Amino acid sequence: MNFKMIGRFLAQIISIEAVFLLPALGISLGCGEWDAVKGFAYTLVIMLSVSAVLYGLCRKAGKLFGAREGMVCVSFSWVTLSLLGCLPFWISGQIPSFVDALFEIVSGFTTTGASILSDVESLSKGLLYWRSFSHWLGGMGVLVFLLAVTSGSEKEKGFTMHLLRAESPGPDVGKLVPKMKQTAMILYIIYIVMTVINVIFLLAGDMPLLEAVCTAFGTAGTGGFGIRNDSAAGYSPYIQNVTMVFMLLFGVNFSCYYLLLLGQFRSVFKDEELRLYIGIVIVAVGLIAWNIRDLYNGAEETLRHAGFQVASIITTTGYSTTDFDLWPSFSKSILLMLMVVGACAGSTGGGIKVARVLLLFKILRRNIRQVLNPKKVQVVRNNGRPIDEKILDNTNAYLAAYVIIVIVSFLIISLDGFSTGTNISAVLACFNNIGPGLEAVGPTCNFGAYSIGSKLVLIVDMLAGRLEIFPILVLLSRGTWSRRSQR
Amino acid sequence: MNFKMIGRFLAQIISIEAVFLLPALGISLGCGEWDAVKGFAYTLVIMLSVSAVLYGLCRKAGKLFGAREGMVCVSFSWVTLSLLGCLPFWISGQIPSFVDALFEIVSGFTTTGASILSDVESLSKGLLYWRSFSHWLGGMGVLVFLLAVTSGSEKEKGFTMHLLRAESPGPDVGKLVPKMKQTAMILYIIYIVMTVINVIFLLAGDMPLLEAVCTAFGTAGTGGFGIRNDSAAGYSPYIQNVTMVFMLLFGVNFSCYYLLLLGQFRSVFKDEELRLYIGIVIVAVGLIAWNIRDLYNGAEETLRHAGFQVASIITTTGYSTTDFDLWPSFSKSILLMLMVVGACAGSTGGGIKVARVLLLFKILRRNIRQVLNPKKVQVVRNNGRPIDEKILDNTNAYLAAYVIIVIVSFLIISLDGFSTGTNISAVLACFNNIGPGLEAVGPTCNFGAYSIGSKLVLIVDMLAGRLEIFPILVLLSRGTWSRRSQR
Repeated sequence: MNFKMIGRFLAQIISIEAVFLLPALGISLGCGEWDAVKGFAYTLVIMLSVSAVLYGLCRKAGKLFGAREGMVCVSFSWVTLSLLGCLPFWISGQIPSFVDALFEIVSGFTTTGASILSDVESLSKGLLYWRSFSHWLGGMGVLVFLLAVTSGSEKEKGFTMHLLRAESPGPDVGKLVPKMKQTAMILYIIYIVMTVINVIFLLAGDMPLLEAVCTAFGTAGTGGFGIRNDSAAGYSPYIQNVTMVFMLLFGVNFSCYYLLLLGQFRSVFKDEELRLYIGIVIVAVGLIAWNIRDLYNGAEETLRHAGFQVASIITTTGYSTTDFDLWPSFSKSILLMLMVVGACAGSTGGGIKVARVLLLFKILRRNIRQVLNPKKVQVVRNNGRPIDEKILDNTNAYLAAYVIIVIVSFLIISLDGFSTGTNISAVLACFNNIGPGLEAVGPTCNFGAYSIGSKLVLIVDMLAGRLEIFPILVLLSRGTWSRRSQR
Repeated sequence: MNFKMIGRFLAQIISIEAVFLLPALGISLGCGEWDAVKGFAYTLVIMLSVSAVLYGLCRKAGKLFGAREGMVCVSFSWVTLSLLGCLPFWISGQIPSFVDALFEIVSGFTTTGASILSDVESLSKGLLYWRSFSHWLGGMGVLVFLLAVTSGSEKEKGFTMHLLRAESPGPDVGKLVPKMKQTAMILYIIYIVMTVINVIFLLAGDMPLLEAVCTAFGTAGTGGFGIRNDSAAGYSPYIQNVTMVFMLLFGVNFSCYYLLLLGQFRSVFKDEELRLYIGIVIVAVGLIAWNIRDLYNGAEETLRHAGFQVASIITTTGYSTTDFDLWPSFSKSILLMLMVVGACAGSTGGGIKVARVLLLFKILRRNIRQVLNPKKVQVVRNNGRPIDEKILDNTNAYLAAYVIIVIVSFLIISLDGFSTGTNISAVLACFNNIGPGLEAVGPTCNFGAYSIGSKLVLIVDMLAGRLEIFPILVLLSRGTWSRRSQR
């Protein structure tokens, strides 16, 4: 294990986090929120010290860097970013419990949007900005950002590749461009441009600047932290519709946008994942609108609420315009199912990913055919091209790990004595990085009532969900730490 | 598709069912239950007519018989047996709705034990016997029985193999003896001897003969239909303990008993599945006993209730000595988890099967290792021997199909408006052939409140669960019915 390289990398990541803290500090200074200023300033000092010490210790690192190192590096980075990023909340005293502060920032970085706060509006503006910004940074990945801005030499190609693989969401089905640095830059440019457009649309609806920026951060990262206690319920239909459209857009695989820029409309139009994603959204909105038709006044309101909630849950954002926990069971079951499916691979959304669901169906079809015709070799295809068997194996293993983690987490948090529906939806909402669940963790409630132990389990679930399980499992694997394989 | 062969086979199966109806008819005659006698007599006439017509139509059948035919044959047999087997309940008027009667007998044959009856004790004795006997017959498989008693020529080897594969529970990991007919006979002899021993133990506890036979049928088939309204709660601790032990014994892979008969104690002791099964039971009983320690008087009562419920749920039997829906969330979550795991492969129990869970963990470990060392080929082993990749593929596909069917069923039955916990546990309890679920379908309640549509979905779930999904999926696959692939 190349610990020095990981250490040097962590030092860089921490200093970037410190830079990103500055706008939040500025906002708090401008508004005269002195406890928040104290939190940010102390945190800055701690971050810079840790970064300097790590850099000093790990300056001379070897070049060897494999898949194992990539995964450990990504996991360590996310844990470190979270441990340091939660300090402003804790030091300022606005979230008195350290575990609660950690829960809140992990929920931010992993774009979950589950909160332990019952009164969001009492938080100071700088902290609200930092909380929403964590969504934006976590959505595309802070390591991807680092790759985009630093100049990696050709020798470090293995390094960047393994990092990007470990942090980017979805099965590795399509590749954008051969060079990793360019990939990272293109992703971030598309991301920034779309966020800016979103802010402009929100400003056009008379939203104040800070609120528009925070809302756009939550939408772009498919996070879901709002800065109002009632999430998006108090906004005008225009703002709700803008947010709904942008949530759906940020749930699309970003390589589709890249292809659009290249003028390849045909291949975007024919993309199987995109088609299934759009299909699921339309069917879900239709079924739910039919199911809740008596709850709202007229077709426009019914469709708006159905559409907003479906967009919010399938993209794993978690904003809400209405308390969907009061909807009939059928609609709630559809939302639970959408929680599991999640957004497209290569988007900022979480969940199993539409591409994986598609693969699972194809694997299933293949195996039924194989049972029927044992002698014929069956190939699984995606967009017409055959898929590497390794990706199929990984998809299967992902599903198995997914089921096991959900069951174990569910078992542990049920020690707190909440209802089965609450516990299942809490685990799914955290693991799929959605945010609100049902019943006691529904859209009008929060996760504050769970015990510290359950919160820690849910924190691990959020991280495992965002990093797609394997980097976290690798941390727990004995082989990773055995001397024999330390090269 | 060799329809004539399937037809001839169905004719044989139906006539066997008619023969098995005779004891029930005798009991009803002896007790003077004239409506039940009418039900049995009419059913007998219908069965014999259908069987005769089918045999006449399909006498001259070709010999070709592949995996596809095996699966279709098994599915058709189970559906036909259920459609005819439910007639006594319906014709006698004791279950007035046909769908309810079908639900009850499918629940019997699939050894689920979920009931739509709120007052079991009002059923006549003959029908109670028939209801419990359906567990016993379904537990080991009626097709396996046919294979054991008929003399198949060497030419029909493919035929018997494909049938046995499609009906027997669990992944095809171990084989007993090379000859299928002998396998079937040995299985049934072990099964009959153990059932008789169970009856003797129950009689020793002063249980009336009919009740002892019915209880043993429910235990042996891991079904769970009781003949008392309070299931096993009213029985003495001795009877409860006997039933608990036999439930656990019937949840063990029957090849272990065969190996014991051969004196191969070592290989039984080293069997990984058996070890995991025993381990899960001990851990679950320990955790639940600790969690419910304040609910009962003293260690004996606490352990007895914890042990009975764990044995009942993991073997998917479904008897209960106490209303476990009143237990704390943690214990209920453990029971929900045991519902999913199920008993050992090659036992009469349902669920995913311990062997498959073991394989899933091994596949997961293999894939983590493969991510870390991409160049090394990793082999999955069972009891030291490498496992065929096809079995691994099938295990993965089984899990995928399992998750998809559970989600779709959950969606549909939630249209009835029950709570999330009720719906999830109802689907799991039926699909894993357990019986009682939680909340509105808990051990003191029944499935009668669900709509006809939901009952039909749950009927399909029970059949898909018992036949381990693929035979039912094959029925729904377009390829099975296309002209092109007719041989």
